[in-house]
Amino acid sequence: MAEFTFDYERRSRIGLDEAVFCAGKSTAQIAAIVAGVRDGVTGLLLTRLDPEKFEALPVEQRAGLDYDPVSRTAILGAARPIEPGPAVAIVLAGTSDVPMAREAARTLHFNGQAQTTFTDIGVAGLWRLLDRLEEIRLAPVVIVVAGMDAALISVVGGLVSGAVIGLPTSVGYGVAAGGQTALHSGLASCAPGVPIVNIDNGYGAACAALRIMNTLRRHASAVSDHQPGQPGR
Amino acid sequence: MAEFTFDYERRSRIGLDEAVFCAGKSTAQIAAIVAGVRDGVTGLLLTRLDPEKFEALPVEQRAGLDYDPVSRTAILGAARPIEPGPAVAIVLAGTSDVPMAREAARTLHFNGQAQTTFTDIGVAGLWRLLDRLEEIRLAPVVIVVAGMDAALISVVGGLVSGAVIGLPTSVGYGVAAGGQTALHSGLASCAPGVPIVNIDNGYGAACAALRIMNTLRRHASAVSDHQPGQPGR
Amino acid sequence: MAEFTFDYERRSRIGLDEAVFCAGKSTAQIAAIVAGVRDGVTGLLLTRLDPEKFEALPVEQRAGLDYDPVSRTAILGAARPIEPGPAVAIVLAGTSDVPMAREAARTLHFNGQAQTTFTDIGVAGLWRLLDRLEEIRLAPVVIVVAGMDAALISVVGGLVSGAVIGLPTSVGYGVAAGGQTALHSGLASCAPGVPIVNIDNGYGAACAALRIMNTLRRHASAVSDHQPGQPGR
Amino acid sequence: MAEFTFDYERRSRIGLDEAVFCAGKSTAQIAAIVAGVRDGVTGLLLTRLDPEKFEALPVEQRAGLDYDPVSRTAILGAARPIEPGPAVAIVLAGTSDVPMAREAARTLHFNGQAQTTFTDIGVAGLWRLLDRLEEIRLAPVVIVVAGMDAALISVVGGLVSGAVIGLPTSVGYGVAAGGQTALHSGLASCAPGVPIVNIDNGYGAACAALRIMNTLRRHASAVSDHQPGQPGR
Amino acid sequence: MAEFTFDYERRSRIGLDEAVFCAGKSTAQIAAIVAGVRDGVTGLLLTRLDPEKFEALPVEQRAGLDYDPVSRTAILGAARPIEPGPAVAIVLAGTSDVPMAREAARTLHFNGQAQTTFTDIGVAGLWRLLDRLEEIRLAPVVIVVAGMDAALISVVGGLVSGAVIGLPTSVGYGVAAGGQTALHSGLASCAPGVPIVNIDNGYGAACAALRIMNTLRRHASAVSDHQPGQPGR
Amino acid sequence: MAEFTFDYERRSRIGLDEAVFCAGKSTAQIAAIVAGVRDGVTGLLLTRLDPEKFEALPVEQRAGLDYDPVSRTAILGAARPIEPGPAVAIVLAGTSDVPMAREAARTLHFNGQAQTTFTDIGVAGLWRLLDRLEEIRLAPVVIVVAGMDAALISVVGGLVSGAVIGLPTSVGYGVAAGGQTALHSGLASCAPGVPIVNIDNGYGAACAALRIMNTLRRHASAVSDHQPGQPGR
Amino acid sequence: MAEFTFDYERRSRIGLDEAVFCAGKSTAQIAAIVAGVRDGVTGLLLTRLDPEKFEALPVEQRAGLDYDPVSRTAILGAARPIEPGPAVAIVLAGTSDVPMAREAARTLHFNGQAQTTFTDIGVAGLWRLLDRLEEIRLAPVVIVVAGMDAALISVVGGLVSGAVIGLPTSVGYGVAAGGQTALHSGLASCAPGVPIVNIDNGYGAACAALRIMNTLRRHASAVSDHQPGQPGR
Amino acid sequence: MAEFTFDYERRSRIGLDEAVFCAGKSTAQIAAIVAGVRDGVTGLLLTRLDPEKFEALPVEQRAGLDYDPVSRTAILGAARPIEPGPAVAIVLAGTSDVPMAREAARTLHFNGQAQTTFTDIGVAGLWRLLDRLEEIRLAPVVIVVAGMDAALISVVGGLVSGAVIGLPTSVGYGVAAGGQTALHSGLASCAPGVPIVNIDNGYGAACAALRIMNTLRRHASAVSDHQPGQPGR
Repeated sequence: MAEFTFDYERRSRIGLDEAVFCAGKSTAQIAAIVAGVRDGVTGLLLTRLDPEKFEALPVEQRAGLDYDPVSRTAILGAARPIEPGPAVAIVLAGTSDVPMAREAARTLHFNGQAQTTFTDIGVAGLWRLLDRLEEIRLAPVVIVVAGMDAALISVVGGLVSGAVIGLPTSVGYGVAAGGQTALHSGLASCAPGVPIVNIDNGYGAACAALRIMNTLRRHASAVSDHQPGQPGR
Repeated sequence: MAEFTFDYERRSRIGLDEAVFCAGKSTAQIAAIVAGVRDGVTGLLLTRLDPEKFEALPVEQRAGLDYDPVSRTAILGAARPIEPGPAVAIVLAGTSDVPMAREAARTLHFNGQAQTTFTDIGVAGLWRLLDRLEEIRLAPVVIVVAGMDAALISVVGGLVSGAVIGLPTSVGYGVAAGGQTALHSGLASCAPGVPIVNIDNGYGAACAALRIMNTLRRHASAVSDHQPGQPGR
Repeated sequence: MAEFTFDYERRSRIGLDEAVFCAGKSTAQIAAIVAGVRDGVTGLLLTRLDPEKFEALPVEQRAGLDYDPVSRTAILGAARPIEPGPAVAIVLAGTSDVPMAREAARTLHFNGQAQTTFTDIGVAGLWRLLDRLEEIRLAPVVIVVAGMDAALISVVGGLVSGAVIGLPTSVGYGVAAGGQTALHSGLASCAPGVPIVNIDNGYGAACAALRIMNTLRRHASAVSDHQPGQPGR
Repeated sequence: MAEFTFDYERRSRIGLDEAVFCAGKSTAQIAAIVAGVRDGVTGLLLTRLDPEKFEALPVEQRAGLDYDPVSRTAILGAARPIEPGPAVAIVLAGTSDVPMAREAARTLHFNGQAQTTFTDIGVAGLWRLLDRLEEIRLAPVVIVVAGMDAALISVVGGLVSGAVIGLPTSVGYGVAAGGQTALHSGLASCAPGVPIVNIDNGYGAACAALRIMNTLRRHASAVSDHQPGQPGR
Repeated sequence: MAEFTFDYERRSRIGLDEAVFCAGKSTAQIAAIVAGVRDGVTGLLLTRLDPEKFEALPVEQRAGLDYDPVSRTAILGAARPIEPGPAVAIVLAGTSDVPMAREAARTLHFNGQAQTTFTDIGVAGLWRLLDRLEEIRLAPVVIVVAGMDAALISVVGGLVSGAVIGLPTSVGYGVAAGGQTALHSGLASCAPGVPIVNIDNGYGAACAALRIMNTLRRHASAVSDHQPGQPGR
Repeated sequence: MAEFTFDYERRSRIGLDEAVFCAGKSTAQIAAIVAGVRDGVTGLLLTRLDPEKFEALPVEQRAGLDYDPVSRTAILGAARPIEPGPAVAIVLAGTSDVPMAREAARTLHFNGQAQTTFTDIGVAGLWRLLDRLEEIRLAPVVIVVAGMDAALISVVGGLVSGAVIGLPTSVGYGVAAGGQTALHSGLASCAPGVPIVNIDNGYGAACAALRIMNTLRRHASAVSDHQPGQPGR
Repeated sequence: MAEFTFDYERRSRIGLDEAVFCAGKSTAQIAAIVAGVRDGVTGLLLTRLDPEKFEALPVEQRAGLDYDPVSRTAILGAARPIEPGPAVAIVLAGTSDVPMAREAARTLHFNGQAQTTFTDIGVAGLWRLLDRLEEIRLAPVVIVVAGMDAALISVVGGLVSGAVIGLPTSVGYGVAAGGQTALHSGLASCAPGVPIVNIDNGYGAACAALRIMNTLRRHASAVSDHQPGQPGR
Repeated sequence: MAEFTFDYERRSRIGLDEAVFCAGKSTAQIAAIVAGVRDGVTGLLLTRLDPEKFEALPVEQRAGLDYDPVSRTAILGAARPIEPGPAVAIVLAGTSDVPMAREAARTLHFNGQAQTTFTDIGVAGLWRLLDRLEEIRLAPVVIVVAGMDAALISVVGGLVSGAVIGLPTSVGYGVAAGGQTALHSGLASCAPGVPIVNIDNGYGAACAALRIMNTLRRHASAVSDHQPGQPGR
């Protein structure tokens, strides 16, 4: 009995390629999914693929995968060519947030979207953020990656006029363990209009950015280039 | 001592006009804020303004406010003229979600953004959604408003290629009371790339949509009109 | 001192054979229970028996057990012959839900109940469910197995007229970790009349289905074959 | 704009008539829904209709409603005639559980299903349950209504062979306040195969029973009258 | 710097000998505590001493310890001689509760209190309890050990007139994982007057029983032997 | 249909008279219960009877009730005569805990047990406790009533050798609101052997003390008057 | 029986005058406490005294109280004269935090400590904080008052070198309701060394500041005036 | 791309040297941070550095680190010389709290602050605290380290007049597991003015003490040496 039904129509339906979440799956299940991909399919993204599971895959499958152990992602086949246009910004609070940020970056890369990462600019040293602010404001979408109190989400949301997506992480201990505090802090942000994805969900934050870029490309001609109130200067 | 410092630069900084959250404020505080708005300021949005508090405001202040008791919002001065371009879609699971949906609609209206509302199309009667799907897909941004299990967020997220924002509501009882189940269901959605705002936060969902529209208007000329994989057909 | 008191009268009292939950028990305790089963008892089901514990059992006990590592179940002695009549449907949201679904399937099999499994038809790709809907509707009882947001429980509950049982799973991360979101989403479902079992409780979902089949067999002659409102077409 | 879309096909699709959950709706919304019911529709059930809201409805609407303040339910038009066949049993732990039990009873009545209620037989006085056990065992479905520790759900589940549905209530204080303890106790029951509905969800428990009766009536002719292991003696 | 200050006066102050909780301590800390016990001290109880930690202690310390791996307790020196008088009853719901029950039994033994254990009499097979009820009623104190829904606490509390102490365990999964459901069910019991100790706290339940036995021995001469309402028949 | 089944055998079974918990019951239900008490029954205790509900009872029923608005308890008929023997001690952390302490005191009084109350001796002013310690140590059972951090439970538990019962209250705000912090603090007490009742459950704490006094009276002759280790000096 | 024991030695023991928390107390209890204050006692602070309760006090008691309805505090007798030395800073995120901030200010005032309040400088408009930063840095202790995401606590903690105390408030809705998010955000702050008081505990934050000022006054002569690393410039 | 941006200005801004939290970082990241420290920087503190990670660092890096496995801290370069002036007191409830207490002690040491530790003086044996009280009262700041019920925080807070900081630990099991009970107990303390840091946050408690010492040194000359009410005697 086939346990996995490939969603080959996903891109035409929601503008995103199929991805496989590996965390709850056995190595045997993952190998079967990879083996079952129809010839000619351009690419497949695997997320939450632990190094141990990757190493346990058949050697010929491993050879066909572009694997990154930090983000625990693998790409089967070629990533899409990078679309022309502005780069999405990924802003990190600290070094511990790198794995989740890189999952987002790899998902954007796989879908052909340029991105720029700004590391280690948590609000405990506010000048680190203010120094990079003008660059960050140029991005059409900003993904803010932060654990612990996730105060960076609010601070960035109060300084940037475009789309901002909060990506809370499980970095922290005590009340911050597991990421609930970062999640709730992001949802309760005093900066308006910053929606949040699930804890550690770099893949989801990137997909949300891709949806916005889909919208941007589809509706570009329909909007005037009038800029309301000159945002972002 | 002045207790409220008006953020007159908000629009130029983040592309959104100042708004006042009235839930934790006394009538005296609200009246002082309204009285303190500088002459010539175009508009001010008041949210979570209960009918009792509205009725307790000075009569001359009430006269200057466009008040809607269902959404508990008031607009001081004129709303911005509606910008040309496509309308944001607001999709509701049920009649009980109307107040939160209308808070979003009024916030969009106040900021000059067109919107269309699709009511009572929860997944328990799936045909109600499928009948309206083509219309919904035309919107650049879809706000999905749902309480209880918030399954509508996942179903819409799996059928639409553009930006989708989940607005969980506190509609429900037992485990759904207060909206935690709807919130968590939205965050854990099996449909990728749907970020979520705080429970009952119609204002925030609208602001997130406005940020995307800001991005759209600012970057429209920079992107090609190439549509990757023909999303959304 | 005997630490386990076999409930030999369980089938005559509640229509289900005795089963042993192994998760909190030591290998020594499990071996003692298996060794203590009275001669002539037809069968015993062991659930949550990890491969490590199974391997640590005495070799002659292992020889007498039909063990399945995916569902972590073992059957001592022969399963009951399959009863004539319609098959219970088990509907899965994703590949990661296979272990819990198979625990349900094995429990039905052990108790002599036919079943059919429908895999990987989560709502993110709604057509996968709609393609199989007519088959699913034929079942007297449908067990819906889903983690993360468990939106599949509501969608199936809104499309099927017979008994539906929700089996939430611990598949997911962040707010979905541990299965609380799936559980709450199922309990708060907008589709009426879908009761829920404990997280990952494939055994319990199957027992609930068996109780319904017991009722069906016991009361079949007492009901008219009048079909109220022609459900299920 | 119509805010409510009547699901006239619900009975033919899932075997249950449309019902309106009134808790989150304004009196104006409820009045509009009642006024909008298409002529010739046989009946409509309103749940969670507080006496204050009922009293605020237009007098001619009130005249057409069969209202019960204890269960806070109203029936518009005639209930269905009672179907022939065995009665569903509703078993209550205590007097405080009466409102939820009556919501279940009224829902069964509205849908034409006979029921019998067994009151105040909590396990603190176990003999009260044992005295009525033979009667309870005759029912095809037993709904157990209990708050606080909900131990009654486990005790009944261990004594009855047919379908049992647990209905946890919010009765209690301290850790029991709101019904979480009763809910979790029911889900973690040591008696196998007892699924649970949301807290205080008498309507849902009744719908789950109706689905089983639908199954029973639809499949009655397909099953043999062989009774496996003579359950229920 | 000495990290542990022995409480040599504990018995004279609260009627219980000193005990050492080993769960959060390193092997080096435990060895230092054991080595530091003053000559002539009659005994020391060590709880939560994992087999790995026990094995890592110096061989001469291990020789002086009476160690039980099931309950993870060790006794240094001799236990007190058993006091004359009635035995405390320990009643278990299932085999998985044996470790916690044995921690209680060993603590009673160490303090010179007789006890009798009744195993595997969970309410899913109620006759197993009713068969032993007369014996259980003879005990001055009954400790009820139960995980999952802990319904046994309520059932015993409703059948016994003397002191009953609830000991909830972490046995279970899903909502029962960690023992919160058992704890809350015990606290919300419909049977009056059954206080509860912390989850898995066999040591604490035994100490509570010992305090009652202390009271009993101290006040025995002061009370009449009048039995109010003939309890316990 | 009678909704309440009086448990006339409760005292002979568990040594406590019947009591009625009024919080979830309507005035009509309470009046029916009071009216239905069999002639010749010695007494009935009503708990959680709010002043508003008491005032709404029929005047002739009110005349027969000994009502105390602080503890919200009423006694129908005569309380039992006070048994000879030592008094139970009730120790309060603060003035806000008086209602719960008085519910315990009234329950003891109703069942014929002497008690002494020690008020306002929270640990923030430790000398208030130490000044009364010798008196408190004379009691066979000590009920400690405390909200907020409930540190008093641990301090008393570390100073007294007899039976101690913790009664956490909902006094407090922020993290202490509702009493969860006091409950958890009591359960996690560093003083061994202090079991805990549900939040604000003065009735239950008193019943636990009564069970101990039942044990004391029943087993007094069976124990030696040997005092182990001279506790309590 | 006296229910309240005045702690007249509190100031000599912990450097703070006695205060009465009125939230859980009846008007009768409060009146009795006020009436019972010993002649010659300099002052008494009452907190959480709702306007309704204040109005219900005897008129002669009201006359002797300095009552502030915003902070719900009353001072009996004269406040202490303001001590010479630097003022404590109270920094507020928004207008809704005024009541808690004023409770802190009034507590400082009552104890003779100067304070300065900085209102409405939440991080959504970061310039409002930066404009006042030099003034804030002059204070020996800074109390930061913030609800919702409480990001202000982290931002101030990262900019100020002296003692900072976080006072989370219950301002907010959804996940922020009740103040848990603000509390957790403060505890998990990325700025080191900012301890937190209970939600809405303006009194406690002021007492923590007073303890620091006590330390400062007591140890001033013992420390060198060497400034390590020139903090704060 | 550099993933870590050293905050060289931290001491001049907030009076504390830079520290690196290693829990969420890979060995490669930690090694890169250590390697990247600018020549001439006086010192760097690493916290939550597990022995396994320490052992995996390059041998030449290990040689330059002063590592303590109990507290899991390492100091790169020399600690600051101890400042003259009074020592901070660290008071521990039990042996299991040593790791967190030592993290605080090492952080104080690294920053040049003298400290004295008082071990194993939990309230279950109250005399252990009272014996050391006079010494503890001499400290300008007292850090109280306690898990389980954390009653020690309240007791010390009620006996000491200077600054007290609560450091709740994750020591305990059942409801105390993870430290939530200790945290909440500290926040809800009946002793006024004791702020709390995150669970197990020895580093943060020390930083809070250092901020107070910074304040003390900076403002010493500005305050009179008048002691209000003669606290602390």
